[in-house]
Amino acid sequence: MTTMSDTDTEPDTDVEADTDELARRAERAALRLANADEATRNEALRSIADAIRERESEILDANAVDVEEAERMLAEGEYTQALVDRLKLDETKIEEIASMVESVAAQDDPLGETLAARELDEDLELYRVAVPIGVVATVFESRPDALVQIAALALKSGNAVVLKGGSEASESNRVLYEAIVEATADLPDGWAALIEAHEEVDRLLELDDRVDLVMPRGSSEFVSYIQENTQIPVLGHTEGICHVYVDEAADLEMAEAVAFDAKVQYPAVCNAVETLLVHESVADAFLPGLVERYEAAGVELRGDRRTREVVDIEPATDDDWDTEYGDLELSIAVVDDVYAAVEHANDHGSKHTESVLTEDAETAETFMTGVDAASVFHNASTRFADGYRYGLGAEVGISTGKIHARGPVGLAGLTTYKYYLEGDGHLVASYSGEDAVPFTHRELDGAEWTPGSLSTR
Amino acid sequence: MTTMSDTDTEPDTDVEADTDELARRAERAALRLANADEATRNEALRSIADAIRERESEILDANAVDVEEAERMLAEGEYTQALVDRLKLDETKIEEIASMVESVAAQDDPLGETLAARELDEDLELYRVAVPIGVVATVFESRPDALVQIAALALKSGNAVVLKGGSEASESNRVLYEAIVEATADLPDGWAALIEAHEEVDRLLELDDRVDLVMPRGSSEFVSYIQENTQIPVLGHTEGICHVYVDEAADLEMAEAVAFDAKVQYPAVCNAVETLLVHESVADAFLPGLVERYEAAGVELRGDRRTREVVDIEPATDDDWDTEYGDLELSIAVVDDVYAAVEHANDHGSKHTESVLTEDAETAETFMTGVDAASVFHNASTRFADGYRYGLGAEVGISTGKIHARGPVGLAGLTTYKYYLEGDGHLVASYSGEDAVPFTHRELDGAEWTPGSLSTR
Repeated sequence: MTTMSDTDTEPDTDVEADTDELARRAERAALRLANADEATRNEALRSIADAIRERESEILDANAVDVEEAERMLAEGEYTQALVDRLKLDETKIEEIASMVESVAAQDDPLGETLAARELDEDLELYRVAVPIGVVATVFESRPDALVQIAALALKSGNAVVLKGGSEASESNRVLYEAIVEATADLPDGWAALIEAHEEVDRLLELDDRVDLVMPRGSSEFVSYIQENTQIPVLGHTEGICHVYVDEAADLEMAEAVAFDAKVQYPAVCNAVETLLVHESVADAFLPGLVERYEAAGVELRGDRRTREVVDIEPATDDDWDTEYGDLELSIAVVDDVYAAVEHANDHGSKHTESVLTEDAETAETFMTGVDAASVFHNASTRFADGYRYGLGAEVGISTGKIHARGPVGLAGLTTYKYYLEGDGHLVASYSGEDAVPFTHRELDGAEWTPGSLSTR
Repeated sequence: MTTMSDTDTEPDTDVEADTDELARRAERAALRLANADEATRNEALRSIADAIRERESEILDANAVDVEEAERMLAEGEYTQALVDRLKLDETKIEEIASMVESVAAQDDPLGETLAARELDEDLELYRVAVPIGVVATVFESRPDALVQIAALALKSGNAVVLKGGSEASESNRVLYEAIVEATADLPDGWAALIEAHEEVDRLLELDDRVDLVMPRGSSEFVSYIQENTQIPVLGHTEGICHVYVDEAADLEMAEAVAFDAKVQYPAVCNAVETLLVHESVADAFLPGLVERYEAAGVELRGDRRTREVVDIEPATDDDWDTEYGDLELSIAVVDDVYAAVEHANDHGSKHTESVLTEDAETAETFMTGVDAASVFHNASTRFADGYRYGLGAEVGISTGKIHARGPVGLAGLTTYKYYLEGDGHLVASYSGEDAVPFTHRELDGAEWTPGSLSTR
C-alpha cells in the first residue's frame, strides 16, 4: 500500500487545501460580520441558545457515544476520570450552556465605540473606533461547552471563528456545531468552522496571514505547545504560580484567612496560591496556627529550612518553587523582608497574580510596584483574579502575556481598533516645507464617528 | 584549523551565554526602571541630549570610519548610494538627534495613569494602571539615529532596551551607545545594551521569556525575516500597499489633488499610494488630466485594460496589484463600483491605509467599514497616516498587525497595564456558594490608584 505510507510522511495536500479554503471563507465572512449590527448579532446568539435547548436529546445522545468511548479508554488507563467528568453533559449542563449564550447576548456591545477623537486641523478629524479582530481560532480539550462559549464570544464581538475540539468530544462537538450553524443561517456563510483532524490544526497554525488570534484552552503543556508552534498571536496562560506574601506589618488574623482562602477555596485553578512567603519576624507567631488549619483541610505542605525551624513539615526542593501544584499542596518560604519577597515572586512567579498582606502602605507600594505580574493584590485573596469578579462580563481568557491583553480578558480582548480620518480634500503637502500649516491637534471629547460627515459641521 | 570550522557549524556557546546574561541584566534593570519617576527619566533623557552634543567631534570621527568603509563597499557594488546617505552624519544631523531626545523628554508621561477603576465590593477596589512592557529590543539597518531614538523612547516609557544596529554603522553606534550609557550612569545598570554580532541577534530572538517586544526597523524583507524567526511579539510593518478610490460621486478636482499628493509628495514611504482605483463612470472625465499631471512629475504609470481604453499607459501585470513600488510608480484600475473597490483593497492591500474620495456619505461608509485596514480615510491623502500628524507625539512605529497596537503607534505602544486590587482581607469564599455576597461592580470614575489605600475611605 504505497499510497498509505506516502500519506504518513508527506503533508496531505487535500487536508491543507481544505483548511486553507475554510480559513479563506472565514476571512471573507469576517469582513461582512464586522458590519453586522448589534441587534443582528444578539438575535443570532438567542437563536443559538434556543437551538441548543431544542436539540437537548440529540446532544445527549451524541455525548453518550463520546462518554462510552472515553470510559473504555479510562478502563484501559488511557484517559483520566477528570477527563471523563469534564466530557459528560446532562440536562442541567445543557441548560447552563444555553443560559451562558443568552448572558453573552445581554452584554454591552464591544464594537463601534469611538475610543478617541481628535481634530488634526479644520475639517480634518481623526477617530479611533473599536472593531473586531477578524478571524479567531480556538483549540481546546475535552469540554464541549468550550466550543459553544468561544463561538458565542466570537459572534458577540463580530469575529469569524475556527473551532477545533478534542477527539474525545467529537460527536458532542459536531452536534453542537450543527446547532450553531443552523441557528445562524442568516449570518455570512462560513463565519464558524469546525475542524476535527490533527493535520488540520497543524495547517491552521501556519495560516498567520488569515487567522488573527488563537485562544487555546487546556493544560499548561497544551497551551505551551500551541505557543511554540505558531506565529499567530496566542491569548492564553500557560501557568499560574501565584504567591501570597505575609509581611511583618500584616494583620495576622486577616493573613491566615486570606492564605487559607487562596489555597483551599478551589485549589485546581490558576489563580490559587502555590507558594506562601512569610516575613521572618512573624514566622513564629503566624506559621503554627496556619499550618494546623491547612493540615486539617488536607493540604500537603513543604517548607524551606527556616520554615521547618518553626513548623514540622516536609522539606521543599528547588523544584517546588517553580511548580504549579493545582492541588491541595503548598510550599512555604521564610524571607528577610519585602524586597526578598519581591525577588522571589519575580524569579519564580508566572506573572499571573501576586498578593501582599500588610497594614503598611509603603510596604504595599514596594511589593505592588516591584512585582511584575498582571494582577497584584493588597490584603485580598489571589482567587479574585477572574473576569467575572473583575466585572469584565464574559471572560475570554486569562493572559500571562503582556502584549494586547493582560490578566483576565473580557470581550474587549477580541477587538482591535481602526482609525477613521474624515477630511475635505486635505493634502499632506500643505503641512510640509516652508509654508507648512500647523496641526491643531485638539481633542474632540465625546465626539462619535459618523460615517462621511464631520462633527464640527 | 578544526576549531574554526567548528564555530561555523555549532552554536557559539560563549555568544549564547553572553547574550543570555545581557538579557537577564536587562530584565533585572527593567524591574527597577519601571519605578523610576517621571523627573528621573526626563532628566536622564536631557543628559543624553547633552552628551550627544558634547561628543559631536567624537561621533563624527567614528561616523567617518563607517562612511569610508561604506563608500569602499559602494565602489565594489555591495552597498547602495541610499545606504551610504542614510549612514552619513553631520553637525546638523547630530543637533537633530539631540533635539529629538529632548522632544521625547517633553512628551506627556505614558506611565502611571489609572486607566480604569472599579469598586468590586465595599473596600475592594480594582485599578488598571499603565506600566512599562519590560524589555524591548530593536534590530535596525544603517541609520545611527535609530539607535538613539529607540533608546530614548524606551527610557521615556520605563523599558530596558537591547539595541542591534547594522554592521555598516558599528563605529557610529558604539560611540552613540557609550554616550547614552555614560549619561545615564544613575539608572539601573544594564538598562540599555548594545549587541553587534549576527549570532547575538539569533540568540536574542530565541529569548522570548526575557524579551517582551521586538521593534525591527528596515526594509519589508528585513521585518518579515524578524517576524518569521522569533516567538517574541513584533511591532512593525512589513508593507504599505495603500489604495485611493475615486468614486463616481467624487469631487474630481479634489480627487486629482489628493491622488497626486498621495503619490508624489513623498513616494518612498509606506503611506504613499501604490494603486489608484477609479469608478468606471468617471474614468473618462478624471483619468486624462491626472495622468498628464503624474507624467509631468515623472510618475511611471501602469493600467488595467479598462484604464488603457481611456489613457495611453503601459499595461499592468498581475504582480503590479501586489507591489509596493516605494517610488514614482503607480498602477491604476477601473472598477465597477465601491464594492469592487473594497474587494480589490482587501485582496491586495496590506491593511495599512486606504482612502475613499466621494461626496456621498453612504458610499464613504460602505468603503470605510468594509475595508480591513489600520487607517481608512475619507477625502484625505493616505500620507496623513503618521504618528506626528495623528497627534500621538513621538512615533514608535507603524503597525500593520492587529494585536496590541495598530496603525501609527505612540509611546503608549511601549506600555501595558497592571491590575492593582486594594482590599481589606477579602476572601473569595464570601462570594461563592449559597450565601454568596453579590459584587457591586461600581465604576470609580476619575479615581487614581494610591498605593496601599482605598479611595472610598
